[in-house]
This record gives sequence, structure tokens and C-alpha cells, in this order.
Amino acid sequence: MIERVLISELAGREDGPVSVSGWVEKVRDQRYVQFVVLRDESGQAVQLVNGGVVRELDPNSEDPKDPARFERTTAISEVATGSFVTVSGELQHNERVKLGGVEIQIDEFNVITKADPDTPVQPDSGIDVRLDWRFLDLRRPEQALIFKVQTTFLHALRQVWIDRGFIEVQTPKLMASASESRAELFSLEYFDTTAYLAQSPQLFKQMAQAAGFGGIFEVGPAFRADPSFTSRHATEFTSIDCEFSWIDSHEDVMQLHEELIVAGFTAVKEKHGAEIEKLFGITVEVPSTPFPRIPLAEAKEIVKERGYEVPRADADMDPEGERQIHAYVKEKYGHDFVFLTDYATSIRPFYHMRHADNNELTCSYDLIYRGTEISTGAQREHRIEVLEEQVKEKGMDPAELKFYLDFFRHGVPPHGGFGMGLARVLMLMLEQASIREVTYLFRGPTRLLP
Amino acid sequence: MIERVLISELAGREDGPVSVSGWVEKVRDQRYVQFVVLRDESGQAVQLVNGGVVRELDPNSEDPKDPARFERTTAISEVATGSFVTVSGELQHNERVKLGGVEIQIDEFNVITKADPDTPVQPDSGIDVRLDWRFLDLRRPEQALIFKVQTTFLHALRQVWIDRGFIEVQTPKLMASASESRAELFSLEYFDTTAYLAQSPQLFKQMAQAAGFGGIFEVGPAFRADPSFTSRHATEFTSIDCEFSWIDSHEDVMQLHEELIVAGFTAVKEKHGAEIEKLFGITVEVPSTPFPRIPLAEAKEIVKERGYEVPRADADMDPEGERQIHAYVKEKYGHDFVFLTDYATSIRPFYHMRHADNNELTCSYDLIYRGTEISTGAQREHRIEVLEEQVKEKGMDPAELKFYLDFFRHGVPPHGGFGMGLARVLMLMLEQASIREVTYLFRGPTRLLP
Repeated sequence: MIERVLISELAGREDGPVSVSGWVEKVRDQRYVQFVVLRDESGQAVQLVNGGVVRELDPNSEDPKDPARFERTTAISEVATGSFVTVSGELQHNERVKLGGVEIQIDEFNVITKADPDTPVQPDSGIDVRLDWRFLDLRRPEQALIFKVQTTFLHALRQVWIDRGFIEVQTPKLMASASESRAELFSLEYFDTTAYLAQSPQLFKQMAQAAGFGGIFEVGPAFRADPSFTSRHATEFTSIDCEFSWIDSHEDVMQLHEELIVAGFTAVKEKHGAEIEKLFGITVEVPSTPFPRIPLAEAKEIVKERGYEVPRADADMDPEGERQIHAYVKEKYGHDFVFLTDYATSIRPFYHMRHADNNELTCSYDLIYRGTEISTGAQREHRIEVLEEQVKEKGMDPAELKFYLDFFRHGVPPHGGFGMGLARVLMLMLEQASIREVTYLFRGPTRLLP
Repeated sequence: MIERVLISELAGREDGPVSVSGWVEKVRDQRYVQFVVLRDESGQAVQLVNGGVVRELDPNSEDPKDPARFERTTAISEVATGSFVTVSGELQHNERVKLGGVEIQIDEFNVITKADPDTPVQPDSGIDVRLDWRFLDLRRPEQALIFKVQTTFLHALRQVWIDRGFIEVQTPKLMASASESRAELFSLEYFDTTAYLAQSPQLFKQMAQAAGFGGIFEVGPAFRADPSFTSRHATEFTSIDCEFSWIDSHEDVMQLHEELIVAGFTAVKEKHGAEIEKLFGITVEVPSTPFPRIPLAEAKEIVKERGYEVPRADADMDPEGERQIHAYVKEKYGHDFVFLTDYATSIRPFYHMRHADNNELTCSYDLIYRGTEISTGAQREHRIEVLEEQVKEKGMDPAELKFYLDFFRHGVPPHGGFGMGLARVLMLMLEQASIREVTYLFRGPTRLLP
């Protein structure tokens, strides 16, 4: 490896020789002194100073260091912002330096890779230009921080699952049938037949229950040929999924769900709380448990009492309704999360279990975070006779789902689980305007590049 | 949750009332006593005993417990293997019981979900039948163990990356171009255009270097429209990827690579070593570092000296050559792993860096484990002028790769990484015949179900 110190570690080091590597964020090329602001993957930046500026090589100069100084001065004058450089010099602590209280007096300034001096992204560029040049946009420290937060969040969730003995599975994304519905389905030629891209790992997560795996989890891509352009939809997104056996009801799923959320938020707060405060002005709050739970029918009443009647023909909530119920929960319980429970059968997929005493209601929930749905969970129907009925009732083809129905013919214990959109959680946690901001490379109806 | 104790925990418990849940693996229905072998997700099985057999209800019986006993006896007689049941009873330690030294005297025997009595998979079923009924095949404890090992292996790798400050990314699987070559590429209609399924995250991993992310990792699906039917190929597989900046050479990549392998194997040995020994008769060996490194040209000479001349027109190794070099390394160094290095330019992709003093050789390697290639790594070319030349030379279209070449126009530090097939590692570690055995749901040219 190229010997270097991360910029975030400079403040804790003693004065003396040091080498750093990163990209040039800014150059102030003054007559007698040059300043370079260098940033690296630690997210921090440091000021580099060239005090030995030599603008012209004087053939009569008696200082033998002048040729090197001339070269260094020229290199700094010419370096385009964005170029990657390796710099060695003397680290000096200096309280007057606003940027981290340290600076480096440059000895050697090596340009490793030059950047094009024309930068297509400006600080005020719109989201589409920034997505066109995503790799430059991601150099902004707040953008990089989003993905560090993502890393920490996912690792904390996985730790909870692993501590509980859950198994990590990688379910196939190529399928012979739809996983959710025939709508919004990508299809492709697959040798002599047609394959579909998984809209969710739902059917395969349930297979693990038939296999007696107990509990399983997966973090992987899911695909929806969804033509919408909202801030919450993408054609490809990262789905956080888990499924586990021997539950009594969807209440068990909600309990694991909130435990996972708490573990993820706690880890993010501990590791990145200060940085998030600094870059986004946001205090990460670890939610208290239990999260409030409100049956959907009751939630619609509450929203109505607040003066908003959900303008939908079906029994579902709408985004404004979700914002209203969040406002209510925030006022009443000071909570950012709420489980809306017991959705109507008419608006839930065939695999949701229904109430024993009311076929019109499912044993399901949506998790709403700051007024936006981030997840759907449920107890699943595991009784083959009931499941077959529900498949037909929902207009799905039992023949196409034979492979799935076969699981249940050979016995599956009571089970449930949820799927959660990673980008939505991050968007809301970090108060971003769109999942485009928190997705490494967003995919939408008109966006397939870079 | 349904109250239950995992079977693996029974041996450590005191005698007394207990409740277990799992699936029926075997029933011995004797005249005066019934035995049930029950297994659960812990991988362990326990013997359940019904001593109070009542075959017929005698209306003159004076024992008030008889109706319950009759019901229980009938339930056990009728239960099909594979059914999921919940059983409560008295736990008794008994050294004479071979199965774990404990048994449970049944009080209540509740069939939760009946299985079809016709089991389509027999112990001697071939791989294709077993894959047709994968969820039943996965109930075998050795199959479940494979996925527990996978879980532990991946978690250990992620811990190494996270300790090094690497960022987890989810790169898109929908792309506007090929990621590796036009061959073996799945394409699909994507709104008004065509999308391709990512053959690897290569181009997007490198984007993270342009973004200044430093080090990144991803575990996700990759797709190859590969028509072959070998034990090592699939059309969809889980790729373990990482990429990081500021390397000096591919030696740095190999060092991280072996550190990851050691961490993964150590964790697997610690957590599952005894179980692997028991179920597979295999002792997991943690490899010593450094792994042997042999330049490919030298390896071909070694193989030739052993009497095998690689029958290929190009400069590559072949599977038999890889087995031969493994045999050599095993004899000479007692090692299961070997890095073959410095592959010829002619057989490496456009993005591999070439030797500064020899354009015919790349700064790359393959990692061979027990004679099979499990991974390819390299330093990448980060100089735009050189990269453009290599793209053209390899017959790729620079226009189609514009989005990728743009990364390098704006500066990318020296970097490298590798991609490793998860299933191959597991197959070789657990001495399985095919990746089909260690893939949750295998996908091949003629297999898209379940």
C-alpha cells in the first residue's frame, strides 16, 4: 500500500513528517504562498501550505533547492480540482487553522491522476446533473457519509439476526413466475424460456420456512417495472428482508422489527452521530419501544377527525394520510414510527394470513417512519387449503405458483416476516428529499446510467 | 412467539417440563410404545416417547386420561414424516438414548401443519430430483449446516472490511451496457430501451474509487447467460467483491484477500468446526499466510514438468492444469491455496493494469483453492489514456463505455480488487461435488424452478 495517514487521524498525531493522499478540493494560488485543500475517504479535509513558492527559475539563483521549488509551485498552480495527489511534508498543529487545527507544510506534491479541469457538476447543480455525474457528487462529504451510515446500519441489523441464529440466504433474482403480481414485472429471454426479475424475495423467503431454517435474512436487490417518478420509487432497490417461524401473530414480527430498527439507529448514532450533526444538522434519535400500533381502520378515523378524508376507492391509506397519522403520533406519543396494522384483505397480497374471525382483515402491518411507509410485514398463510383459495381469489394462477404451493403441501410452520426499503429508511433518517440521494446509483424509468 | 426450547439446548437443561417444535423425521409406531424423532432448525434431533399408547377407546375404561391418550396415539400413528408439530412433555436425561442422551415423554402432541405422506425425495435421489424439491432437501442437517457456514463466513468477511473502514455498496444489476463482455449477457426490455443484467459489479466498484470512497465491498448477485453445465458454473451466482484505493500493486490485493480468507475460515472453524467434522467428516483447516504465489508462466512450466501440457491455444490454464498446480503446491508447501499471478494480457479484461515493463503481462492473479479457481483479482488501469487504448484493443466500444471512461477523466487513484464466487468457496471447503449443493436455489440453463 502507498504509505499514508488518513486526514481524520492528523489532529491526533504529533508534529512531524507525514504523508497524505486524496483529492484536491480547492487551490488558493497566491503570489507568495499556495494553499491546497485536500480531502480523503475519511471525509475530512486538511490545508496544505507551500511557503517556498518559486514562480520563475532564476539561472543565477544560488539556492540549490530552487528547481524543486519551481516544479512544486508549477504543479500546484496547474493542478485541477478533483485530481488525486500524494503529498508529504511537515504536520503542524496550529489553532488558527479553521480546518481541523492542523496544516501540512508541503515538501513533495505528486499528482497521481489529473482531473479534467472542466467540472460538470456545480454546487448548485440539480439532482439530474448530479446523478449524471454521480461519482463526482459522491465526493461531497455528506454524500459519502450517507453510505457510511448505510454500512453501519446494515451491519447492526445483521448482528441482531446472527445473534438470534438466523441464516443469511441469497435468493435468486431470476424466476419462472411473478413473485408479487403480474404488474410491474421485468421479463427477459432465458435460453428457451422466459424469466422474470424478482419483485421481492417473498416466495423464496417462505421456502426457507418449509426447509426448517427457522429464521432467515437477506439484503439484496428487488426489481419493479414501475413507471412512476416519485421521490420514493425506483425500478431497482435494495430490500431488507427477514422471515421466521413459530410466530403467534404479526405482533411477533413487529417486535423483531422494532428491535432491529433500534439496533440500527443506535449503531448509527454511536458511530456517526457527531458527523451527521455537523454535516446535516440532524440529531439521530433512537426510537423508544414499543412503537405505537394503530389498526388501519382506526388510523383512517383519526386522520378524518383531523380533517383529512383519504380520497381512495379502496381501503388503503395514501401518502397524505400517512403524513397525517405521523403528525398525530408525533403530537400524541412524540414518536417518529408507527405500525399501522390489520390492513384490509382487498389491498393485501394472497400470502398474507387473514384474521381467524374476520376474513376481511389481514394479520399485517405497514411501518410508517416520519409519515412515509418504509416496510410491509405480516404473518403468512401456511395452511395449503386456505392458501390455494386466496391465490385463486386474488386472480393468480395456481399452476404458475405450483412450485410455491408445493412448499405448503409438505408442511410449513406458522411464520411471518417483513420487507423494508433500505433507501427509504436512510432518506428519512437523514432528511433527504428523495431516495435518489441515498441510492448508490439510482434506477428509474428514464435512468439507466451511469 | 410460540414457547419452545431449541433441541440443541435440551442436553444442557434439567429434567422437567419442556416444549419443542420442529418437523417429524421418523416415527416408530410399536404396539405398546411410540417413538418420534423430531428435528428443528438447530440441526439437532430428539427422541419423543409416547408410553401411554391407547389403540382403542374402551367405553368401560375407568381411566379418565384414556380419551386424550387415544387421541395422541392416533395422531402419532397418522402423522406423516415432514409434518411440523409442537410437543410438550417431560424432558429426561438418559445415557442409553443415542440421540443426544435425552428424550421427552410426550404429554401433548399437536400437529401444526400436515405434510403430504408421499415424499418425492428419497435418501438416494439424484441431484436433479433433490433440486426439484429443494426445500425438502434443505431439511437434511448437513444441507442446513452449509447455509449456517455461509452466514458465518460472510459475516466474518464483512467484519474485516468494516474494521478497515470499507463502505458497503449495493451496485445496480440493471445496466445500459455490458460490464465484462458482450458474450453471455442477459438483456431485457427496459421501458423504451434495453437493459442488461450485470455480469459483475466491476465498473461500479471502480466508480467508488473515483468517488473517493477508499475501500468498498459488496456481496450480491451476478448474472451470466452461460450455457455450460459444469459443477462450477451457474447463470446467477453470489459474487463477493471488494475494491480499494492507494495500492502499490496487485500484491496489496492478494494480502487483503488472504486476510479475508483466514478470517472467514477461522470463524467457520470456531463456530461450526465440530458440526462439520460430525456431518461431513471434514476438519476445517485455517490456511497459513502468506499463501504461495506463482507466476502463471512458471506454473505452466511446473505442470509441464509433472507431465501435463495444457492443451490450450491461448496462454490460460485449464481445470486440469489448476488441479496439477494444486497437487504441486500441496506436496511442496502443504497448502490448499495458491495465487497464480501475472496472467497474459491476451486473456485478461481491458480494465486490468499491465506490467510497466511488459505490456504482455497483467498485474493480476487468480486464487486457486484445492485445484479450482475461486477468484480473480488485479490492479486496475486508472490512467485514462492507457485505459482508452486497452478498451479499443479488446474490441469494446468506447462510446458504450463512455460513462465508465468519464470516471477516469476526472481522476481516480491507483486501485485494485477482486471478485470471488461464494458457492465455489463453500463447495471446496465442504468437499461438495457441485455448486448446486451449496447454492440456495441453483440457476442454470435448464433450471429456473423452484
